[in-house]
Amino acid sequence: MKHKKPLILVTNDDGITSRGIKALVEVAKNFGDVCVIAPDKPQSGMGHAITVHSGIIIAPAEFPGATMAFSCSGTPADCVKLGKYHLLKQKPDICLSGINHGANMSLNVIYSGTMSAALEGALEGIPSIGISLCNNDREISMESSIRVTTIMLETFLKNKPDNNLCLNVNIPDIPFDKMKGLRFCRQGRGNWKEYYEEHKNPEGKEYLWLTGKFENFEKASTDTDLWALDNNYVSVVPVHGDMTNYTELKRVGEWEMEW
Amino acid sequence: MKHKKPLILVTNDDGITSRGIKALVEVAKNFGDVCVIAPDKPQSGMGHAITVHSGIIIAPAEFPGATMAFSCSGTPADCVKLGKYHLLKQKPDICLSGINHGANMSLNVIYSGTMSAALEGALEGIPSIGISLCNNDREISMESSIRVTTIMLETFLKNKPDNNLCLNVNIPDIPFDKMKGLRFCRQGRGNWKEYYEEHKNPEGKEYLWLTGKFENFEKASTDTDLWALDNNYVSVVPVHGDMTNYTELKRVGEWEMEW
Repeated sequence: MKHKKPLILVTNDDGITSRGIKALVEVAKNFGDVCVIAPDKPQSGMGHAITVHSGIIIAPAEFPGATMAFSCSGTPADCVKLGKYHLLKQKPDICLSGINHGANMSLNVIYSGTMSAALEGALEGIPSIGISLCNNDREISMESSIRVTTIMLETFLKNKPDNNLCLNVNIPDIPFDKMKGLRFCRQGRGNWKEYYEEHKNPEGKEYLWLTGKFENFEKASTDTDLWALDNNYVSVVPVHGDMTNYTELKRVGEWEMEW
Repeated sequence: MKHKKPLILVTNDDGITSRGIKALVEVAKNFGDVCVIAPDKPQSGMGHAITVHSGIIIAPAEFPGATMAFSCSGTPADCVKLGKYHLLKQKPDICLSGINHGANMSLNVIYSGTMSAALEGALEGIPSIGISLCNNDREISMESSIRVTTIMLETFLKNKPDNNLCLNVNIPDIPFDKMKGLRFCRQGRGNWKEYYEEHKNPEGKEYLWLTGKFENFEKASTDTDLWALDNNYVSVVPVHGDMTNYTELKRVGEWEMEW
């Protein structure tokens, strides 16, 4: 039996109890039937990890605004696979991931559990959007993000996206009336300048904790997500799973080699 | 104090005790000083995960052929960050990841812990190679893989790779004298047709296990890694971390939207 309204699969990487996913469902339920399948614990930084070395446990969950909901012991990408291959009788019409508590612009897309779930959707033929708010404070008001997500979803549906389209949306941490709009852009070049803090556990055993500061490698470029966010736009980057470096492919294709 | 010989950082995703990483060090030690930093347990399918929710524990390890070696409680990408930002006094000249027990061609690059470590190297300015043998049997002879890896590394060094170059090398599961050579190619389009097997634990609780079969979506194309492997070549795909879908960027840039 086909759903009349669009079936919207919602997931995230902060876990099923986070405020971000509640805000996302609040928006999504105005556009269709919502199915939530989300990790049972925080999964930030999980990249495109999938569970291959152990079983996955799923459990029904209560989720206001959702038609059905499950928590899952696996990763964000696992949640999307579970939706498509196990839990849902039809392929979702859209996959939404977020709203992440923290930015996923630039290179962060490859570390992001939020974006891996969205991309997994697109790879399975479900047009998808990953949405992140550029603020790590989990108690922050989601009001502006809800307004942006509503506009983004309206725009997305109106323009009938390709089945393999995946958008990486980052919302600047400013009031809605200060935002200038959505800006389609490319992933800016940047990376983390990192270091490890040294800590000791109660038994005196040392452990390390990763920390660092993000650097924009191309401050002069105005077509990047980094520029958009710095200039009060919501950044929207279409992403895909083809990681071929075509520029290098031309170069290495001319390498001398002996076999 | 500068090393005279190249400093080679070696890691993997199957864990520090796997046969693949031993084979890789056997090759690498002929080209420079080898530092092994590898996960203390299998980390296949970890994608580009990094440890951000907990501390990381490292421990010195014995590793024949290596100048120094550490096991690490984190992911493959963590191992490379630890090398660059914590354990090594100088930036490694090369980063090698593998030899993975199992293929990482086509879309598998995004799920692969092996390739995330290699890419992490290149993102940190260390030219890198991820090497995978297209056979999951951990008892398989590594002899052909050792010969291929030697040729690959000679070719790599001779051609003075760019600091951000990352190569995804897959070795077909055939005897060395049946292989036709290295073939530079792009990531072929394909994906897994998946399903979940249902199991029950001793308490009767259900868990699910992901399984599936890989499908090549473009069998007619001869410039892909999938074609190369099917035709007895070692496939070599340059990969990078820019996930922007430039084709879609042109299209969505023309979307109608209201703010």
